[in-house]
Amino acid sequence: MTAETPKSASPAAPAAAKVPRDKQDDYTREIAATRRDFVAAQTGTRLEHVGHYSFSPDVLPGNIENFIGVAQVPIGLAGPLRINGEHAQGDFYIPMATTEGTLVASYNRGMRLLTEHGGVKCTVVDDHMQRSPVFMFDDALAARGFGEWITAHHADIAAAAEATTRIGKLKRIGQYAVGNLRYLRFNYATGDAAGQNMVGKATLAACQWIQANHPLHPNFMLSGNIDTDKKHSQINTLNTRGKRVIAEITLKDSILKPLMGVTGKQLFHARQISQAGAFIAGSANNAAHAANGITALFIACGQDVANVAESHAATTYCQLLDNGDYYWSITLTSLICATYGGGTGLATQRECLEMLGCYGKGGALKFAEICAGVVLAGETSLSSAILAGDWVSSHDQLGRNRP
Amino acid sequence: MTAETPKSASPAAPAAAKVPRDKQDDYTREIAATRRDFVAAQTGTRLEHVGHYSFSPDVLPGNIENFIGVAQVPIGLAGPLRINGEHAQGDFYIPMATTEGTLVASYNRGMRLLTEHGGVKCTVVDDHMQRSPVFMFDDALAARGFGEWITAHHADIAAAAEATTRIGKLKRIGQYAVGNLRYLRFNYATGDAAGQNMVGKATLAACQWIQANHPLHPNFMLSGNIDTDKKHSQINTLNTRGKRVIAEITLKDSILKPLMGVTGKQLFHARQISQAGAFIAGSANNAAHAANGITALFIACGQDVANVAESHAATTYCQLLDNGDYYWSITLTSLICATYGGGTGLATQRECLEMLGCYGKGGALKFAEICAGVVLAGETSLSSAILAGDWVSSHDQLGRNRP
Amino acid sequence: MTAETPKSASPAAPAAAKVPRDKQDDYTREIAATRRDFVAAQTGTRLEHVGHYSFSPDVLPGNIENFIGVAQVPIGLAGPLRINGEHAQGDFYIPMATTEGTLVASYNRGMRLLTEHGGVKCTVVDDHMQRSPVFMFDDALAARGFGEWITAHHADIAAAAEATTRIGKLKRIGQYAVGNLRYLRFNYATGDAAGQNMVGKATLAACQWIQANHPLHPNFMLSGNIDTDKKHSQINTLNTRGKRVIAEITLKDSILKPLMGVTGKQLFHARQISQAGAFIAGSANNAAHAANGITALFIACGQDVANVAESHAATTYCQLLDNGDYYWSITLTSLICATYGGGTGLATQRECLEMLGCYGKGGALKFAEICAGVVLAGETSLSSAILAGDWVSSHDQLGRNRP
Amino acid sequence: MTAETPKSASPAAPAAAKVPRDKQDDYTREIAATRRDFVAAQTGTRLEHVGHYSFSPDVLPGNIENFIGVAQVPIGLAGPLRINGEHAQGDFYIPMATTEGTLVASYNRGMRLLTEHGGVKCTVVDDHMQRSPVFMFDDALAARGFGEWITAHHADIAAAAEATTRIGKLKRIGQYAVGNLRYLRFNYATGDAAGQNMVGKATLAACQWIQANHPLHPNFMLSGNIDTDKKHSQINTLNTRGKRVIAEITLKDSILKPLMGVTGKQLFHARQISQAGAFIAGSANNAAHAANGITALFIACGQDVANVAESHAATTYCQLLDNGDYYWSITLTSLICATYGGGTGLATQRECLEMLGCYGKGGALKFAEICAGVVLAGETSLSSAILAGDWVSSHDQLGRNRP
Repeated sequence: MTAETPKSASPAAPAAAKVPRDKQDDYTREIAATRRDFVAAQTGTRLEHVGHYSFSPDVLPGNIENFIGVAQVPIGLAGPLRINGEHAQGDFYIPMATTEGTLVASYNRGMRLLTEHGGVKCTVVDDHMQRSPVFMFDDALAARGFGEWITAHHADIAAAAEATTRIGKLKRIGQYAVGNLRYLRFNYATGDAAGQNMVGKATLAACQWIQANHPLHPNFMLSGNIDTDKKHSQINTLNTRGKRVIAEITLKDSILKPLMGVTGKQLFHARQISQAGAFIAGSANNAAHAANGITALFIACGQDVANVAESHAATTYCQLLDNGDYYWSITLTSLICATYGGGTGLATQRECLEMLGCYGKGGALKFAEICAGVVLAGETSLSSAILAGDWVSSHDQLGRNRP
Repeated sequence: MTAETPKSASPAAPAAAKVPRDKQDDYTREIAATRRDFVAAQTGTRLEHVGHYSFSPDVLPGNIENFIGVAQVPIGLAGPLRINGEHAQGDFYIPMATTEGTLVASYNRGMRLLTEHGGVKCTVVDDHMQRSPVFMFDDALAARGFGEWITAHHADIAAAAEATTRIGKLKRIGQYAVGNLRYLRFNYATGDAAGQNMVGKATLAACQWIQANHPLHPNFMLSGNIDTDKKHSQINTLNTRGKRVIAEITLKDSILKPLMGVTGKQLFHARQISQAGAFIAGSANNAAHAANGITALFIACGQDVANVAESHAATTYCQLLDNGDYYWSITLTSLICATYGGGTGLATQRECLEMLGCYGKGGALKFAEICAGVVLAGETSLSSAILAGDWVSSHDQLGRNRP
Repeated sequence: MTAETPKSASPAAPAAAKVPRDKQDDYTREIAATRRDFVAAQTGTRLEHVGHYSFSPDVLPGNIENFIGVAQVPIGLAGPLRINGEHAQGDFYIPMATTEGTLVASYNRGMRLLTEHGGVKCTVVDDHMQRSPVFMFDDALAARGFGEWITAHHADIAAAAEATTRIGKLKRIGQYAVGNLRYLRFNYATGDAAGQNMVGKATLAACQWIQANHPLHPNFMLSGNIDTDKKHSQINTLNTRGKRVIAEITLKDSILKPLMGVTGKQLFHARQISQAGAFIAGSANNAAHAANGITALFIACGQDVANVAESHAATTYCQLLDNGDYYWSITLTSLICATYGGGTGLATQRECLEMLGCYGKGGALKFAEICAGVVLAGETSLSSAILAGDWVSSHDQLGRNRP
Repeated sequence: MTAETPKSASPAAPAAAKVPRDKQDDYTREIAATRRDFVAAQTGTRLEHVGHYSFSPDVLPGNIENFIGVAQVPIGLAGPLRINGEHAQGDFYIPMATTEGTLVASYNRGMRLLTEHGGVKCTVVDDHMQRSPVFMFDDALAARGFGEWITAHHADIAAAAEATTRIGKLKRIGQYAVGNLRYLRFNYATGDAAGQNMVGKATLAACQWIQANHPLHPNFMLSGNIDTDKKHSQINTLNTRGKRVIAEITLKDSILKPLMGVTGKQLFHARQISQAGAFIAGSANNAAHAANGITALFIACGQDVANVAESHAATTYCQLLDNGDYYWSITLTSLICATYGGGTGLATQRECLEMLGCYGKGGALKFAEICAGVVLAGETSLSSAILAGDWVSSHDQLGRNRP
């Protein structure tokens, strides 16, 4: 059953055969089948399940090249999750695509906890997508002068950028000086699209305008790597990439204890320890496992899943209140999501966005709120599980009175 | 077409209806259909495409709960990519599941470049999975003594841990002191499984043995958050999580220039700029877009996609050689992958692993090498594109002689 | 000769005697001597050298409490260092206070290298000091609204802040959202003072104005720890604290090789390796040893030496030019220095500032440029030494042609 | 009074005059005076106070070159501070050299707080100094094999290293793989010296042994920049550089409230906010101002003050206990200090070490404990001040019950 790889290659050997393409129309069931046959011939593996899909490949240009079929990723249904957001309001059923057992069950448990508390509060507090070109000069002095020129010509630069897009709006250009370089970080509002391509195109136009109009006509690269596309970074944690969205809940022991077997006080004790751990580890996230919920939602809902790299970053901030209630917040600092464009319109992906009431124009902020609510549900569930299993039996000793 | 969310909920309103479950057998086509009908009733959205899948749900226990159907994620075929690894040797065709247009084409271009150079060299240099409990003491002195005790009792601890698993082997216990806490980081060899669950179970057994046998019978939590599960961290960059795998190529201008339109010298110039950018940004990765290739492979091949959070971290190291050739390496410091367990055995996922010759026992190191080779292909392609588009026309000026 | 500590104390024992103070005038030679006698009585150690100082203690209020004498820190003279800055222009002799042998000699060697190239170019590209209060709200939504209110009331806030200072000017308020908190980062121009106290006072006034005038009258803390006072941080690397100052040189092998025994090409090769090392280590500085030069200048010149914590952060960016020359820059991202206030007016400290032509009003930018030039001198010297000693004999092999 | 800089230099102009040296004996009062006269002639600044010192320059070889005199840095006396360490036991009077007003007073206040609680508990939990060479190979596979060889030859390598030193002991060699490089991090016990020079010499010998004996005779650089000398880094936070030392106290409101005007509960509330701030800022230290106390002690006691760069890093971990007491710890992860060698034997520096009972052999761990205790004193004082001034009047609202 296990296939062997095609040809034992020596460095000098000719490369294996090229993947078949149909120059007339490369997005048909036929060429996809031809390519699967090609795979079978080359590797001995027949892609039967991969070839099983329910939509016409002619919707795929712009989404994939050399289409051969689909990955069938199981979706589980979690919820209801009550969300009290500005955009997401009500009880939601959440489609989660994953292959990791217990993930759906665990998030489901957390959703019940939040819902029984009347719902999770979710708020998008910032929203912009970046492209970060870098300009090159003879020396730092010229680069500094360029920076001042950029500030003085913001309106012209914005006009050049925005001429390329109906939706994107240039909000701010951050500047970062290193040696004889000037890194710029263009921040755009991008509506319901994630916007990486939109801002790339807009920023290229802006850079060309700058190069043509600045007296030094400086060289530039379209990315100086501080965007920081498809990568976690501290600049994202600070300055946001995509949506900065916050989920909040104030847990009561009367609900928490029966459902989760722990108290707010125990969770707060444990929080101190996990925060110190995250700090010394240099972690992108001092919470528990935001990536799990985000990834499952992203796969189900046609997001660019590679953005999990940025989107999983988070900061948890909590307080034990005087009445014993436990205020718990998680701030996703760089959640990149869309309800328009990219993979959002594909067959299963659109259905999942629609069941959340998020498909298309006007859905992105709502979807971001849902993501945050789901993440917090997962945090409460996993954090409680760690304590209830390993630690609660002796919880009286952590908060001990005998140091 | 767009569905409304179910009920406008007030905090006090009762939660929406529970998701249907079948207590006899919750993994059937029938209950999945019942849940899809439930979604339709609750949200107005009919999940027609989601309900289209080609396997029997009875394979899903351990992979998903509340199954309703699948996300159909398009797969494109890239390659051939010639890999000269220890485990992956030969020309490979790569299944990439994504909804981002140009991704497959771009990686494909990079694969051609590497293959025409005789192939990419790939090497796994380290391999272990972690679980990091934390033990609590009255003071730092007691915690330090505990640390010494752990070192002295390593064999017993390993025995306790390994009693829970046929495969996992405890290799090393890292120790990190903070206040009156002692964080331990258990590092295991986990064979062809990613191993998060395996090491969790083994470490719990080890902790229970420790708690029972250490004179102070100290409290512990099974995770002190320095594992750092589902999160990028500097400790991963330093000490590895999953596989540390390196892809290397020495590019020649005679091949590079015609295919990519750039020279090694230009790439090296640009590298200085992108490295400085990554450094000031505090980026998890000073390369370009490793997350793209990894995610597409992970979705296709049944990996735990949330591990993109850790797996996308990378360090690029390059040199321009005296003969003008360009040595380019990328080190993935925390690639978490498996060819056994998890989602690897599901229908499409297994087919994709099989076409790579990686399914099952003995495949994990091979798959890690393939991941690294694919990543480097994507790096060369995107980095070249940035330069060729924006920068090459004036490349003579970056390496200018008039400072 | 070695003294015993005073009293073997048990936790319950009364504390040792209080340090003598003179309620009439605590800044006299007499009370300083009394305190030294007290030390002798308590510890058996006579502070003879500590008691040897050349100024009147009556200048010390505002600089020290419980004065007993001085640390005599040796000063070495380095230079001349030719600097081509905007503010520092000409050949400078540099007072360096240190107890580490070879430090002055090594910097001196680097200064000669830079001077023989016609001097080091130094440029201050940004300049502001921060105080970062945090305001607290019921939820993230209220915090977001507060942020918008802050932006809308910037002029009023600046007026409130600037009413407390003749010199400080509020330039920008950064905002960072976490949970129900809003961190603000006030950025001020502070003239020739380092300004930490100035901005603390001004920001307190601003916060009080905000609290009084915002409809919610929110609570605040004057520091939410993102200032980040006396601590290195990535936010400093990105957004500057104190001065962001850049030193640049383009080295020629014709001068470099005879003086240092290395070529630009060798330095550039080594740079790739040290940059990769700094990246995986999570270093605050991907250069060599900026802290050495900065500390020696800071002690000599009456700076707040604890600011080495922030000031040592740096980013090196280099390029090997087509003609073989080596462009080398170092960007100090958070150099905190002053030529007015603090310790700058004390006896030896003022002399050292004066010999640099930096004492008093108008000197801070000049002093910052000198710091940067000195740092780059030290970088060239140490980096060359590492290569020339260990590596040059086989340097032909690093840039080898046989991968 | 303000001097002009010497000569307005054009890039082509000859450099200013060389600093005078005495080839017979460069460590005399005469040559120091000659150099001060030279400064006066070149800059117009007479260094009268700088020339005022109480020791013979013939003690200075190994500490300074081109000696001209001293910086007189005021020392204030703080304490008594009761310390309950393994090495420091009893009540200590602390010499703090600084020019920042209120620093001594503030630390003094904190010392009183700790002392009235029966003293601060201080523990050194780890202790080693690093040098980190890097070896270069053709590819990652060869580098990996080298790593295995290093592990197998540890005893021989240790023997080669330790042959260069009577004191240094090689404890562990960490390995970090990047591309075709292998970074090694040699960890040594260095007794009462800080040990940077000792470990440099020992590691060079080790590298030469390795190069001679490994079959590939690989090239190396003595530092690959992960040591990370004179730089903060995450690797230090994780793996320690110098001493890892922890100070702990359990504060009682009955003592805290009258002295500081705040309660443990208020401090704990504020801690959550300052920790979240430190996390998003990417700070080297999530506490308050460790650098202040460390720097003042380092200047007074002849430490290499540039090590403040590494030494100021810290992690605070706290818990509010069930009885309301407040457990507060600070972990200094990379405190580099010495009581032997370097500047410790100079006139005032030795006196200050002696009054602490730390001078010479056997003093380093004691001095490290004192540093930690002093730091925690400063933390309690500043943290309380921030709250008592700005926040306590409304403290009932932070822990509010109305979310």
